[in-house]
Amino acid sequence: MSASKWQGVFPAVTTKFKDNEDLDYAAMEKHFAFQVDSGVHGLVTCGSLGEASTLSFDEKLEVARIALKVADKRVPVLANVSETRTATACRYVEKAAEMGVQGFMVMPSVLYAADAREAKDNLRTIAKAAQLPIMVYNNPVSYKVDLLPQDFAELADCEWLVAIKESSDNIRRITDLRNLLGTRYQLFMGVDDLSFEALALGADGLLAGVVVAFPKETVALYNLIKEKRWDAALKLYQWMTPLLHLDVSSKLVQNLKLIEAMVGVGNENVRRPRQPLLGAERERVAMVIQKAIDTRPDLQALV
Amino acid sequence: MSASKWQGVFPAVTTKFKDNEDLDYAAMEKHFAFQVDSGVHGLVTCGSLGEASTLSFDEKLEVARIALKVADKRVPVLANVSETRTATACRYVEKAAEMGVQGFMVMPSVLYAADAREAKDNLRTIAKAAQLPIMVYNNPVSYKVDLLPQDFAELADCEWLVAIKESSDNIRRITDLRNLLGTRYQLFMGVDDLSFEALALGADGLLAGVVVAFPKETVALYNLIKEKRWDAALKLYQWMTPLLHLDVSSKLVQNLKLIEAMVGVGNENVRRPRQPLLGAERERVAMVIQKAIDTRPDLQALV
Amino acid sequence: MSASKWQGVFPAVTTKFKDNEDLDYAAMEKHFAFQVDSGVHGLVTCGSLGEASTLSFDEKLEVARIALKVADKRVPVLANVSETRTATACRYVEKAAEMGVQGFMVMPSVLYAADAREAKDNLRTIAKAAQLPIMVYNNPVSYKVDLLPQDFAELADCEWLVAIKESSDNIRRITDLRNLLGTRYQLFMGVDDLSFEALALGADGLLAGVVVAFPKETVALYNLIKEKRWDAALKLYQWMTPLLHLDVSSKLVQNLKLIEAMVGVGNENVRRPRQPLLGAERERVAMVIQKAIDTRPDLQALV
Amino acid sequence: MSASKWQGVFPAVTTKFKDNEDLDYAAMEKHFAFQVDSGVHGLVTCGSLGEASTLSFDEKLEVARIALKVADKRVPVLANVSETRTATACRYVEKAAEMGVQGFMVMPSVLYAADAREAKDNLRTIAKAAQLPIMVYNNPVSYKVDLLPQDFAELADCEWLVAIKESSDNIRRITDLRNLLGTRYQLFMGVDDLSFEALALGADGLLAGVVVAFPKETVALYNLIKEKRWDAALKLYQWMTPLLHLDVSSKLVQNLKLIEAMVGVGNENVRRPRQPLLGAERERVAMVIQKAIDTRPDLQALV
Repeated sequence: MSASKWQGVFPAVTTKFKDNEDLDYAAMEKHFAFQVDSGVHGLVTCGSLGEASTLSFDEKLEVARIALKVADKRVPVLANVSETRTATACRYVEKAAEMGVQGFMVMPSVLYAADAREAKDNLRTIAKAAQLPIMVYNNPVSYKVDLLPQDFAELADCEWLVAIKESSDNIRRITDLRNLLGTRYQLFMGVDDLSFEALALGADGLLAGVVVAFPKETVALYNLIKEKRWDAALKLYQWMTPLLHLDVSSKLVQNLKLIEAMVGVGNENVRRPRQPLLGAERERVAMVIQKAIDTRPDLQALV
Repeated sequence: MSASKWQGVFPAVTTKFKDNEDLDYAAMEKHFAFQVDSGVHGLVTCGSLGEASTLSFDEKLEVARIALKVADKRVPVLANVSETRTATACRYVEKAAEMGVQGFMVMPSVLYAADAREAKDNLRTIAKAAQLPIMVYNNPVSYKVDLLPQDFAELADCEWLVAIKESSDNIRRITDLRNLLGTRYQLFMGVDDLSFEALALGADGLLAGVVVAFPKETVALYNLIKEKRWDAALKLYQWMTPLLHLDVSSKLVQNLKLIEAMVGVGNENVRRPRQPLLGAERERVAMVIQKAIDTRPDLQALV
Repeated sequence: MSASKWQGVFPAVTTKFKDNEDLDYAAMEKHFAFQVDSGVHGLVTCGSLGEASTLSFDEKLEVARIALKVADKRVPVLANVSETRTATACRYVEKAAEMGVQGFMVMPSVLYAADAREAKDNLRTIAKAAQLPIMVYNNPVSYKVDLLPQDFAELADCEWLVAIKESSDNIRRITDLRNLLGTRYQLFMGVDDLSFEALALGADGLLAGVVVAFPKETVALYNLIKEKRWDAALKLYQWMTPLLHLDVSSKLVQNLKLIEAMVGVGNENVRRPRQPLLGAERERVAMVIQKAIDTRPDLQALV
Repeated sequence: MSASKWQGVFPAVTTKFKDNEDLDYAAMEKHFAFQVDSGVHGLVTCGSLGEASTLSFDEKLEVARIALKVADKRVPVLANVSETRTATACRYVEKAAEMGVQGFMVMPSVLYAADAREAKDNLRTIAKAAQLPIMVYNNPVSYKVDLLPQDFAELADCEWLVAIKESSDNIRRITDLRNLLGTRYQLFMGVDDLSFEALALGADGLLAGVVVAFPKETVALYNLIKEKRWDAALKLYQWMTPLLHLDVSSKLVQNLKLIEAMVGVGNENVRRPRQPLLGAERERVAMVIQKAIDTRPDLQALV
């Protein structure tokens, strides 16, 4: 569990709610255990998929606490940092570090479209407060801040910044980062339906979404590629792709909670303003999921 | 001060900070008084320009309390609602209503890119909790949720939704809203450098930014157009336009605080991750501001 | 008919085809006469709306020749230059100049997304060959080349460039051009549903589309604003707006030819790959048009 | 040379000009021979990279004639069809077919942003006139027409449409097309810096740009992947990537002609409005190219 060399499949776990929007601790314990028992290599709590924006400061710490208990040091637990003020983010990482998390996922800036100077300063400030390894979550599509390879070159002296979650939706970044920075950062693909491409290009891991319902398949995809069993990996990926597309949507939370519900490892409860899928939209998504379930490959035969 | 017929110039006031990022109550009292004494028709606290994303729940209430004290019922005070969870937003409007605000500005959804169904439901839920007049802040550019004229038609039965802050950056919306909905909603332009255009098209007011430093000029612009003194209005607007462009930028907070500093009604302190402008960027903006100051028109001659 | 001071309403006339896609000379004679007799201030042949991309070099000259014959020097005729190679454009303007056109509309670059240096050089080269007044057609939305106010400042020494058709879809440009360049260029709004806004801001004319079916109404709009009769102008513009939106669409040719057909001044024939509107799309557009026809204002009462 | 199973590396060859913009036949003969002798699997004349927009109807046929002569049936020659009117495109393919080309590359619509119905009808009409195999060039980024996998499903009955050049800049399309349509179409990646990714996903070939200067390297990349020698392929691709980025630019023609000039297989002459790179932009690009030349891998060692 070497912090500086995170690799493999890290689920951005969903946060479980009861019907009244309260946190459902039991459901989370069960689900996190399902993930770890299925072979994932880390857990990331309260990311975008974890509905961070509807959770209070204390609730986010609670979810991390559950993950830590379940993981029991078998895999690292990273708490996502989504505070919109730098000072609050620092307070958050200090609390979570005390609690024992192994590291953090940190967005360069949330809500405010910081420029590169501000974003890098924000990251350095949070890293200094955290004193733990950090995966920088670069997602210009959702968060409007884009750290380029040269920005990561400038940040290279900050020892706590050890990994990058690449969610620019631009697969070229994997090669550009490798060409400029070699193996300085561990590279995780944060866009589900670019997983095969990124691993083929030498990425170190997946910060994944659909894995919350299909952990064994996601881990198998990772292993097949690392073992250079390309044909089997591609076949598996082609099967997964319609599911993976559901992670690249403003409705990713609802889509993935519907997948969880349909495979029996979760429910569709979300916190408002989010609402569960409805009507024709729900039917269309459910049909994609059902088809994937009906044609689920036999992993034993594959692996 | 009829709530259902808000009109005129409503500044989205900046939030004042000390050097250590603490709220600067004295500076805010002074600045809000400057606005009201200069003739603005309302105050909106803790909007985007008010750095809402870096303020705590309680701080936002505090800022509203100061505005209420200063306004002293001379003009309505609207508290902006920027909570990312619906339940929290409801709690917020209840607290602010108890405190005596005259109404709210409400974003259809913050951080989560809600679809129209979710956004409308969110608005109705908050309106029900508020039991006070609401200006809906439609800003698809920054917040990715776009309520179309037909959405506002569907919301027309909700009596508390009385006004729209139009920030789609699409001037056509003013006419489309008028054509579809007549005068059901008071229309405020939320994009500074579309002010003249919107008022010419019959908008009822401005939810303005540069007004924080130039309230008399902004009120004069509004009055000249309402009095159909087009040539004088256009001349004033042409002078203001380089300043107004500074409001349409991801750096609008820093830009406008620099304007405030340069005209002597504020300072440049912001909360991180935001940072004050620096270097060439600051010089470029300062030059625009200085030129406007140097050529500031004589309002007495104009009005 | 002073070339250097074009102003008023210039229709970008549609090109008429027979059922077999051949040019319909008689229909064009009739339609151009209808325009001039209705009071328009100029004619522009073979623009985007004139389906330039499907016309041969010689056909475009033929259409200009018809326009010249009909206009008979009552209004200037501008031939649009849409050649994709500079050398061909020069040959085209030479031929059209010999034929007697009063000027040209010239796009900075067609099909190739030239940068500002290349686009300006292209314009200068064509202007030198033309030796006639030119309206520069700035349309970054369709043609990916955007000449900014500072680019027009650099071009100001080229005497033949006398006017700008502003189609950036950014109404701010009118004020920015005025602020930087005063009255160096005559400014025409090229986006139908920004007409009122542009004229209110002091633009000199409209390079218009819906005018092909509603010339009297478009001229009335122009006159009312120039006479500062704002209320009447706004009321007329609100009526026109749903029609004007039809000009801002990839289907503008088909939309406007349907308008022409429904008001009895043209047919729906287009050249492939374009095809007439069909099915639900056609019904939706037809309904907008029919509603406008049914509520057509009495211009006598207005003007 | 089976037409229905095109695969491998097809250069979109540049068109060579003399200093006075005339076609340089000798330079083209030499360059096309260099390509074929270096092992490419086909030639495509007068595509975007071939400056189609500045060539006359007859010139485009001339270039195809040279390619046919040089290829001498060793590899198929595809003439790109870039006519903006359907009827002209039909006339063009008839002429080129008489001349003996083995097939065509056809854009769904040029200049006019056709909708799917119009674009598909355009393709069918051209295919009927051509009576030869066609590669459909899907490039919504440059040409604003996007044929989706379901559109290609609808076109599947048209036997002449045998291949797709995928230039949507969305790597997901490869898998989506395979999932929906199996091997109905041969899939070529049209975006240079997505080559490795596409081949890894099972694409059949590359419709490539940088190949014009580096044919052996491009063919080696293709062969290494087809032989499943991933590590060597990735290493080669990482070296090529800075060059490949130069193909994804509005200046791709100038960039690639500079590469050709620097490796000694072409010159920088372009037709206006295009102009050769200049100043800082040229230096920046030249530095990227020089670095690639300086670190050029030993293919013998790799292959």
